[in-house]
Amino acid sequence: MNDCVFCSIVAGTAPATMIYSDDAVCAFLDIRPITRGHTLIVPKVHATELVDLDPDLGARLFRTGHRLARALRVSGLASDGANLILNDGTAAFQTVGHVHLHVVPRRHGDKLSFAKGFLLRRPHEPRSTAAAIRAGITALEQSDQGAQG
Amino acid sequence: MNDCVFCSIVAGTAPATMIYSDDAVCAFLDIRPITRGHTLIVPKVHATELVDLDPDLGARLFRTGHRLARALRVSGLASDGANLILNDGTAAFQTVGHVHLHVVPRRHGDKLSFAKGFLLRRPHEPRSTAAAIRAGITALEQSDQGAQG
Ligand SMILES: [Zn+2]
Ligand SMILES: [Zn+2]
Repeated sequence: MNDCVFCSIVAGTAPATMIYSDDAVCAFLDIRPITRGHTLIVPKVHATELVDLDPDLGARLFRTGHRLARALRVSGLASDGANLILNDGTAAFQTVGHVHLHVVPRRHGDKLSFAKGFLLRRPHEPRSTAAAIRAGITALEQSDQGAQG
Repeated sequence: MNDCVFCSIVAGTAPATMIYSDDAVCAFLDIRPITRGHTLIVPKVHATELVDLDPDLGARLFRTGHRLARALRVSGLASDGANLILNDGTAAFQTVGHVHLHVVPRRHGDKLSFAKGFLLRRPHEPRSTAAAIRAGITALEQSDQGAQG
């Protein structure tokens, strides 16, 4: 046992609004979102910093971020883009010692609300937000399958 | 031909201080660095935004960022961490329309110089900086080979 909050979320012993989960990584809403839909993606195996993270697992982490950024655009949040941010090390503002990739949905003209969110970091209806993102992931999957079929 | 500055750097028709290059991606110093060693990693094939980028190529991009973050720590820059940032879309402050991953080296106690760099974004001896980072990549390669052998 360790006292890592993200390991506890992975283990299901700490609460989180889960967006996505597979064998390697999971994604859940940031409890202090900068914008609505601000999500964190973490490897399920503990790694404190990038030096501790297996490169293949790092690639899985980023693939999920890439996919989530695409899903957010087709989701009910209708994002126009996103900031993908990985702060590696306390010197780089990493605040939880378990590698995590931020995906912060953005919309045209949101600079003021982005700045406000950066200061306030208050939740925005987590249930409906998570439902909208999950629907976006499903829509993206169906659209990709249609493109292949 | 397109008029994309990053495609021109990839083609060698625009100048850049190159740090790393392989068949899929290359890395060069940001001409307006936030901190010394601030590097951009780009796919060699043009992709405007993440929706245009092949997921495998995206994974290659991130793998290189991960590796660079590790190399910076063992380089002469002696970083204690890094911010890895991918701004996807003009709504998310993407300023050049060719996907790029920022790797911004950080050191303990650099918050003030980071803030100053964010405002000024002035170059820091690009030649010696690039040489130091390339030496870090070589040192990391040798260390990884030693660990395997
Ligand atoms: Zn953990
Ligand atoms: Zn280009």
